[in-house]
Amino acid sequence: MQPSSSFFPTIRLKPKSDPRKIRHGFPWVYANELVTDRRTKALTPGAVALLEDADRAPLALVAVNPESRIFARVLGRPDAEMPVGGPDRAWFAARLQRALDLRERLFDAPFYRLIHAEADGLPGVIIDRFGDTAVVQPNAAWADARLEALTEALVAVTGVTNVLKSASGRARGLEGLDDVSATLAGTAPDAPVPVQMNGATYMADVTGGQKTGLFYDQRPNHAFAARLSQGAKVLDVFSHVGGFGLACLAGGADSAVAVDGSAPALALAEQGAEAMGAGARFETRKGDAFAQLEALAAEGARFDVVICDPPAFAPSKQALEAGLRAYERVARLAAPLVTEGGFLGLCSCSHAADLSKFRAASIRGIGRAGRDAALIHTGQAGPDHPMHPQLAESGYLKALFFRL
Amino acid sequence: MQPSSSFFPTIRLKPKSDPRKIRHGFPWVYANELVTDRRTKALTPGAVALLEDADRAPLALVAVNPESRIFARVLGRPDAEMPVGGPDRAWFAARLQRALDLRERLFDAPFYRLIHAEADGLPGVIIDRFGDTAVVQPNAAWADARLEALTEALVAVTGVTNVLKSASGRARGLEGLDDVSATLAGTAPDAPVPVQMNGATYMADVTGGQKTGLFYDQRPNHAFAARLSQGAKVLDVFSHVGGFGLACLAGGADSAVAVDGSAPALALAEQGAEAMGAGARFETRKGDAFAQLEALAAEGARFDVVICDPPAFAPSKQALEAGLRAYERVARLAAPLVTEGGFLGLCSCSHAADLSKFRAASIRGIGRAGRDAALIHTGQAGPDHPMHPQLAESGYLKALFFRL
Repeated sequence: MQPSSSFFPTIRLKPKSDPRKIRHGFPWVYANELVTDRRTKALTPGAVALLEDADRAPLALVAVNPESRIFARVLGRPDAEMPVGGPDRAWFAARLQRALDLRERLFDAPFYRLIHAEADGLPGVIIDRFGDTAVVQPNAAWADARLEALTEALVAVTGVTNVLKSASGRARGLEGLDDVSATLAGTAPDAPVPVQMNGATYMADVTGGQKTGLFYDQRPNHAFAARLSQGAKVLDVFSHVGGFGLACLAGGADSAVAVDGSAPALALAEQGAEAMGAGARFETRKGDAFAQLEALAAEGARFDVVICDPPAFAPSKQALEAGLRAYERVARLAAPLVTEGGFLGLCSCSHAADLSKFRAASIRGIGRAGRDAALIHTGQAGPDHPMHPQLAESGYLKALFFRL
Repeated sequence: MQPSSSFFPTIRLKPKSDPRKIRHGFPWVYANELVTDRRTKALTPGAVALLEDADRAPLALVAVNPESRIFARVLGRPDAEMPVGGPDRAWFAARLQRALDLRERLFDAPFYRLIHAEADGLPGVIIDRFGDTAVVQPNAAWADARLEALTEALVAVTGVTNVLKSASGRARGLEGLDDVSATLAGTAPDAPVPVQMNGATYMADVTGGQKTGLFYDQRPNHAFAARLSQGAKVLDVFSHVGGFGLACLAGGADSAVAVDGSAPALALAEQGAEAMGAGARFETRKGDAFAQLEALAAEGARFDVVICDPPAFAPSKQALEAGLRAYERVARLAAPLVTEGGFLGLCSCSHAADLSKFRAASIRGIGRAGRDAALIHTGQAGPDHPMHPQLAESGYLKALFFRL
């Protein structure tokens, strides 16, 4: 044990809690696994502590939050270097540089998820990069308390000029954190940021929050859809800012129709299509996706490629059964719109619906539409969304591509 | 029911067998699910029959093989068009054309798996295409009995000049078929065929059987490894004819070392490297992979990218535990050879070891080597290996890419 550990308060596993989980790399300790005496409960949210097993053997340096069900998040081994005050600018810089090295190897342009929480060594922290603007979601107390050091390191390592704090994440409430977004460095862009991805141009409203932002996780699935789309008529349902539709246009689609319930999202999609010179091949339909699918069927519309990328229908275990029925319904309504020999892409970003259940629901829906299908590809989130090995079961994003 | 069905003998499910499985698209009927009277047992292997449920309602047109545990394979719905003699040239041509349409959409050059059995509508049949040569594995009696029609259709639809029958598949024994390979059309190439894939050149000995043939299924995983390899030192363990190593060289690797136990395979790998002008950056080491991994560690060798693509260590449920230990050992021996911040790719082509079990074994091995890792990508077989929806659980190929 290095001397540095002795600077920190200790927290201790209960005798019945299994220390091997932490030794094997699991990154979280729940409140009910710890001896929580008055001293422990009085720790400042975000403080660094030394986690010990019941026999006082050191297990890890952790960041604590007595207000969260996830009481402690592992920051490093017990002998890891750690400033007395916890993570500082240099500590953040080392992790950011390591994360940046991966992204620069993977991508030609600075548009990616730079930090994907635990798997990038910054538990609970998400950072998306849009060229010279970075959007930080500090969804854990330890990082929220050190935003200045994080911001300075981020500017120094990546060279971004604008750093925005997004406080819209649901996770912040669970950590007892505020929901106040802010500009941490530079200025917030006053117009949507054009983002190049798979040859398409997306307009990202980085200050507008989830509804009109941009999700990088679908990048490889957009690319797969694009590969199917040369000369194709494409339908992109739950299109958001044009995710699949614009990628397919970039991949040579003859035309793309984007369906979404959000007028601002579709307006950004149209701006993207214009920016890539594909405005004339792009059409939007605002409305409830289920109703639009039924309306398109009634019109006798057919498409060579149909993609449905709905919001999480099964965000929790409680919502699983209803969610799977909704996924099945999407498949059942979308399949009849696909030409013979055409392609149907079905996505789920529900943690609760695992691949096997989501696939079964999709196959049931296609079958109920009276169509035969072969599954040609199963996609997931891109490599700028790495998974912590001990959390790898939780891969949330699934994209199934069927040929009908 | 169309008149055509009445031409065919009927086979019938037992009252206790569930007909919904077939109605939902499951493509096989096992012998123990059927009423097998003397008449049924006397059916010619490969004959077409009408499958009925216990109440004599038609379920499907099937090809039977009384000598196989898979007694019947679904060829189509009960009212599907079917010649009296069973599948003929035109019947094969329609399915081949449909399969070809998909591959031509996916790939720029005629090198791919053209037919992937059930998912391409030809149960038990595998066809790999190497330019103007196709290698057919007719691993089911119905197709083996109709090789002339299949070959004629294949030549007509694809324009290949050489068609080879490969009878080396283990599945043929289960179907009671011979193990005699043959030339069905044209001539067998008298030299390895150069195959372009991901910018690399592979030399495929299409007449030499599995040991020196070529596997198309790893194509997207080769591509992912190549994406990590700019300027990298690469180690490709269980390299076969250079699969990952040559792809990484094409992706800009500084050097690649290929390890394999087969001298003929490594000789083909060297020919491939020469053909792509990368011979000087390519090195081979013949020997047992485990021993070579230990020897490289002893030499203090380090690589930026290490890929291990072993043969199926868990080919059956009985072999699962031993297989998982072998996968763990591969990970434990390979991880120490990876530079800090480098990449480790671990593959499994074992049906019995599902993704979750293989991932856990890999993570254990990396952990036992004292290394931390993030999982950045999970790959599978490419889209020229589609999956029948009712067999989709059986996706055999897994490729895990970790950053260490």
